[in-house]
Amino acid sequence: ANAMLSGLPTTIFSVMSALAMEHDAINLGQGFPDTEGPADLVEAAATALRDGRNQYPPLAGLPELQGAVARSNARFYGIAVEPAREVVVTCGATEAITASLMALVNRGDEVVVFEPLYDTYLPVLRLLGAVVRTVRLAPPRWDLPRAELAAAFTPRTKAILLNTPMNPTGKVFTRDELEFIAGLVAKHDAYAVCDEVYEHLTFAPARHVPLMALPGMRGRCIRIGSAGKSFSMTGWKVGYVTAPAPLAALVAKAHQLLTFTVAPNLQRAVAVGLDKDTAYFERLAESMRSARDWLAEGLGRAGFDVLPCDGSYFLIADIAPLGFAGGDVAFCQQMTRTVGVAAIPVSAFYDQAGADIPDRYVRFAFCKKTGVISQAVQRLQGVR
Amino acid sequence: ANAMLSGLPTTIFSVMSALAMEHDAINLGQGFPDTEGPADLVEAAATALRDGRNQYPPLAGLPELQGAVARSNARFYGIAVEPAREVVVTCGATEAITASLMALVNRGDEVVVFEPLYDTYLPVLRLLGAVVRTVRLAPPRWDLPRAELAAAFTPRTKAILLNTPMNPTGKVFTRDELEFIAGLVAKHDAYAVCDEVYEHLTFAPARHVPLMALPGMRGRCIRIGSAGKSFSMTGWKVGYVTAPAPLAALVAKAHQLLTFTVAPNLQRAVAVGLDKDTAYFERLAESMRSARDWLAEGLGRAGFDVLPCDGSYFLIADIAPLGFAGGDVAFCQQMTRTVGVAAIPVSAFYDQAGADIPDRYVRFAFCKKTGVISQAVQRLQGVR
Ligand SMILES: CSCCC(=O)C(=O)O
Ligand SMILES: CSCCC(=O)C(=O)O
Repeated sequence: ANAMLSGLPTTIFSVMSALAMEHDAINLGQGFPDTEGPADLVEAAATALRDGRNQYPPLAGLPELQGAVARSNARFYGIAVEPAREVVVTCGATEAITASLMALVNRGDEVVVFEPLYDTYLPVLRLLGAVVRTVRLAPPRWDLPRAELAAAFTPRTKAILLNTPMNPTGKVFTRDELEFIAGLVAKHDAYAVCDEVYEHLTFAPARHVPLMALPGMRGRCIRIGSAGKSFSMTGWKVGYVTAPAPLAALVAKAHQLLTFTVAPNLQRAVAVGLDKDTAYFERLAESMRSARDWLAEGLGRAGFDVLPCDGSYFLIADIAPLGFAGGDVAFCQQMTRTVGVAAIPVSAFYDQAGADIPDRYVRFAFCKKTGVISQAVQRLQGVR
Repeated sequence: ANAMLSGLPTTIFSVMSALAMEHDAINLGQGFPDTEGPADLVEAAATALRDGRNQYPPLAGLPELQGAVARSNARFYGIAVEPAREVVVTCGATEAITASLMALVNRGDEVVVFEPLYDTYLPVLRLLGAVVRTVRLAPPRWDLPRAELAAAFTPRTKAILLNTPMNPTGKVFTRDELEFIAGLVAKHDAYAVCDEVYEHLTFAPARHVPLMALPGMRGRCIRIGSAGKSFSMTGWKVGYVTAPAPLAALVAKAHQLLTFTVAPNLQRAVAVGLDKDTAYFERLAESMRSARDWLAEGLGRAGFDVLPCDGSYFLIADIAPLGFAGGDVAFCQQMTRTVGVAAIPVSAFYDQAGADIPDRYVRFAFCKKTGVISQAVQRLQGVR
């Protein structure tokens, strides 16, 4: 059996969801909304099932959706995109990330990543034989360590993998930080894989800026979006890649080997979603911001130190003030069992082989109904 | 950019479909039905969209579908399967094949494959660093070359990749052939990845036998099925893996890195499909057999030598009797342009680096409406 996969632990999201279920806990672990997405998208998906287009769509995606992705790039970021040659539809952002790394990386190439990081990044990079250069961001502000980042780039750097808005930190990279990154990417003739699945979930005054929108970056970025996150349909598994044509062609070839195509009815519904008016996206962010505020307030009252959060589904809380000595993993298990709220230990987002992994931070998902958040907050008051 | 992917030509299925479109040709190239699958599955998928389960399902699949896959294994092949631990739902058989090979193979491991072969097999194996041992089957009967196969197994053999019913040949491996293969797999302590997407599309007296159903093989096989093929919904991209629990766990880990989950509404509809009565599957095979017969007769009348076909969507015809000297690729291009019928050159199913690739065979898909087949047959009479 494959050695890397054999050594891969069960994903923390499944572990904590199972524990939550077992203890009938409120699940603020895995990041998925507990409400459905827009009803018109559900209807569009259902209608599309019925009109006879249930066979293979084109490999890179339906023209309807490629066009909608291009329009969305233009509307929100002023990025001009040729739909047929620069957009590839994937089975969720997970496939998009894996396919993008496959497209760029040869064995031995170096890839720069930020820690904490999403749990598929490292195993995929290892499978591809990449040499991983990890740059740690430090709590509580997760500011860019510029000198360290510059030092992580070498003549062998092929790409940087950038997640903004960032999971699990809730950090939204500032334009200034992105300009610094862009400078390094250009200087080293490298590429950037930009996981921007939370692009529409930022809280003013923070604003999402795609690295691709910066001068000189249009031809160097593979930008990844997610219908699951932008339309609260995480089960649909529709992702989209925007990239310069030569890179998009390679992503499409990786996609051919991984899944080949994506269900046409879901693609057509997502196209409807991407063409929604700007107010839809603003309301989505606003409802998320309000959930964040509720949860932050409640966590504060319960004795946690709450870290800043400018975007994503997630808020990190410091458990140090609670005086719990067993570390974040034990804390999350105990919290699930005793007060009935599940969350994710942030140490799970670190390379487990690394040293000095912080163990006093816990990630809470706030993409939940107001009533659920307030019930969780109530339960959390008993955590001390 | 990744060297292997950069060297990968555009898949022949997309190339020929584009050429067919350009010349308004009847597309007997890419294997997809031109009718929709069962209406009750469409309704089940549409209904499932509306009842609030559009968020992430469990990584390995919904219990409904895992259970239906297990029941299907029991009903058709007498294979007992533990649904929760031995079934993994994937984004189509394409992902299932890639994930299964990822699960088994370490770099340097040997994998035995039969040629002609489906066009994702070799690039995926190369990406994984497998050493590929190719065993050619010879037209027109594609019989198992037993001595050669035995010689292809070595102490470093990790797996054999077996496709039965076989694309593009229409061969259905006999029990006797499978017993020989099983003997080699057991003797070399190896595994088998069994691409059985056409399992329900065989034509009596031929019958599909999963290698997994043979004595000693239950713990050594990863068996792959396809809702696209079994329910004529190739765009749905729902595949399923049946494997002994330890291997299924590894396939699930690969799946976690590739796509993570599959749309719940489509999973639920496919569960309905797998529980259909046996008459449904018999009618499906019967309608395919009748299409095969129509097409075979017409190809014969048009001057082709038609090769035997016991299953799948595909029939191979020998163009030698037509006196065309330019090879199968040029023949397919010319046939698309001049008579308006597109098909796939069988040479595309060979390792292009190999020697003596046959170039007189053309693959026709017969998973099409009777009217379409008869129109194609009419056009084909002008091919000479
Ligand atoms: C793909 S499962 C995990 C969902 C998610 O993005 C998260 O919880 O971090
Ligand atoms: C996945 S596209 C090709 C469809 C198919 O299986 C074939 O035509 O061989």
